[in-house]
Amino acid sequence: MDAPNLHRRLRKIIGQVQAIDRMVDEDIPCEDVLSQISAAKTALHRCGQIALEGHIRHCVRDGIEHGDAEKTIESFTKAVERFSNMGR
Amino acid sequence: MDAPNLHRRLRKIIGQVQAIDRMVDEDIPCEDVLSQISAAKTALHRCGQIALEGHIRHCVRDGIEHGDAEKTIESFTKAVERFSNMGR
Amino acid sequence: MDAPNLHRRLRKIIGQVQAIDRMVDEDIPCEDVLSQISAAKTALHRCGQIALEGHIRHCVRDGIEHGDAEKTIESFTKAVERFSNMGR
Amino acid sequence: MDAPNLHRRLRKIIGQVQAIDRMVDEDIPCEDVLSQISAAKTALHRCGQIALEGHIRHCVRDGIEHGDAEKTIESFTKAVERFSNMGR
Repeated sequence: MDAPNLHRRLRKIIGQVQAIDRMVDEDIPCEDVLSQISAAKTALHRCGQIALEGHIRHCVRDGIEHGDAEKTIESFTKAVERFSNMGR
Repeated sequence: MDAPNLHRRLRKIIGQVQAIDRMVDEDIPCEDVLSQISAAKTALHRCGQIALEGHIRHCVRDGIEHGDAEKTIESFTKAVERFSNMGR
Repeated sequence: MDAPNLHRRLRKIIGQVQAIDRMVDEDIPCEDVLSQISAAKTALHRCGQIALEGHIRHCVRDGIEHGDAEKTIESFTKAVERFSNMGR
Repeated sequence: MDAPNLHRRLRKIIGQVQAIDRMVDEDIPCEDVLSQISAAKTALHRCGQIALEGHIRHCVRDGIEHGDAEKTIESFTKAVERFSNMGR
């Protein structure tokens, strides 16, 4: 996994959710709160994509070294399924 | 908006994202990281739903008091659209 | 519900899915098949939004006529929840 | 791509959308229409997942034969991104 990239993104997401938490007490239009929630959701989804891509890359490099296609495919299939089922 | 409910949920989400941030440096299987990202995304989506429901309720109570259906409908249509377009 | 609008959209979606079905046998890059699946999914989601908006509008008009806010809110809450939980 | 599996699923989805099209003219509760739209969306999403998995498998088998990790990774990255950005 691309750790520095994920850390940077996750810390930004924490800031976004803290900002949403403050918006709840202020007189902010509902649609603006929803826009911020949407942005945080999309940012989390992108973290999932980065984690998945890093994992598949790792599996492929490892697989080409060892030459076992079936074992390589097996090593990332569960992560692809988990990513595909990520929350709405 | 149901502020105490949203605050409680948003603070829990901050804890979830902090936990994901720690997982990145540990030797956690990718699919487990994806499960946690999925849980945080779903929790954010539910906050959006709660904000939208509170907003429509407010608009309907206000609208029934004033008796103007078109103005009432207009007052929540933008929020429904924004909710519908919330990030993947 | 805005029936003519929904019929037009749903019939277009049927055409999109038939086109995807044909793409499977042709030598089409995977990412192009995924783009078409994405377009059909977004179009279905939009039909859900149109059905929901039409339903809430109907409930609000009915509610303002009868003046019962709680009953009006109850009449669309289940549909908002169902829409919110629509498939990924 | 697993063509027979995809054909079977896509034809079932066409039947689902045709059923939704009929529901619009009948006196079906909005939440039931939304449930059927949700089912069709989830089924389309799953077709995307099957197409992506088949594509990555193909790329990995090909890559292990030719031994070029970077080229292999490049061959499926675009499809992973496209899948990740599939419509809500």
